Amino acid sequence: VTPSEVAEARRLGRPRSAACDAAILDAAIELFVEIGYEGFTMEAAAARAGVGKATLYRRYGTKLELVMAAAQRLGEQKGPIPDTGAVREDLLGLARGYRRMLTATDAGRAFPAMLAAKARHPELERAHTRFVSERRRASFVVVTRATERGELPAGTDPGLLVDLLHAPLFYRVFVSGEPVTDRYLLQLVDSVLAGARG
Amino acid sequence: VTPSEVAEARRLGRPRSAACDAAILDAAIELFVEIGYEGFTMEAAAARAGVGKATLYRRYGTKLELVMAAAQRLGEQKGPIPDTGAVREDLLGLARGYRRMLTATDAGRAFPAMLAAKARHPELERAHTRFVSERRRASFVVVTRATERGELPAGTDPGLLVDLLHAPLFYRVFVSGEPVTDRYLLQLVDSVLAGARG
Repeated sequence: VTPSEVAEARRLGRPRSAACDAAILDAAIELFVEIGYEGFTMEAAAARAGVGKATLYRRYGTKLELVMAAAQRLGEQKGPIPDTGAVREDLLGLARGYRRMLTATDAGRAFPAMLAAKARHPELERAHTRFVSERRRASFVVVTRATERGELPAGTDPGLLVDLLHAPLFYRVFVSGEPVTDRYLLQLVDSVLAGARG
Repeated sequence: VTPSEVAEARRLGRPRSAACDAAILDAAIELFVEIGYEGFTMEAAAARAGVGKATLYRRYGTKLELVMAAAQRLGEQKGPIPDTGAVREDLLGLARGYRRMLTATDAGRAFPAMLAAKARHPELERAHTRFVSERRRASFVVVTRATERGELPAGTDPGLLVDLLHAPLFYRVFVSGEPVTDRYLLQLVDSVLAGARG
């Protein structure tokens, strides 16, 4: 095998491999949304993706690994972190992005089943909690930038502020079923800002 | 049958019937926490409660009715609405009660499975959303009393305030896995109060 043959194989192999990865993760997401974690099997995920079980197991050793890789892919649906230069606009952007994620994406559709599965499977609980914690921290920059600009008091707790913004949306969509209108988002952002400014 | 015989039958029947009701609902709660809504059957609930299927069906015509009656019973674990005369103490009491419900009761243990089931079954979604809405409104009196006392501005929105208090606890316990410490509860209450006072 010459170096150029390797390069050629890579050139041909890479896209096929990337397409296969995407097909597997999309199939896993679909399956998870439909049946949740308990009934989810590697066999069903392979069949849905149209790949062999060996191909699937080469990439993901366990159902947990596959499900968490699917969660990572879904996490990308949350959209970019806003950076408008004004904290009110940034928080509104964050809140709108989170509402969209909860109500109009597979990530939102998978969320309730994931919470139920977390409560039953400690290994999933640890992996998903770590994942949420990383995603959550990515939003903190909106608060730290605003604090640096002097729009929020020094010492503002980003974790408290981000929870106060995201949690009510989560609660309305999945628990109380109350609507999350644009007006509600504005009230929420203004109330959270007033709270942070004491 | 004389009136006194009816009264006697009632006297004997009532306690047995109440005990049977409690046994059925407790069995339904246990079963729901263990296996969720999908695998839940009337047969299994009757067997767990030690009653016949006919006895169960006389009380609850469907699985949905039984599960919602169990939810009502669990709802009683939330504890009374505080009325200390001071809004900060009342909100702290509400927050502590909600934390306790989420982390230390069967209601909390059943919650994640209920959210997953709601997402799959529109009839359960409607019934549970109505139930949450009633429970949620019961807390509003803390806000309306504080508004009447002049501790909160006229026009304070009880729904927004109660969401801002409850939702972050829910989010921490079931989504982010961050701890809900006493210090966090105090920060949360003070931030929500500052937000409401503008």
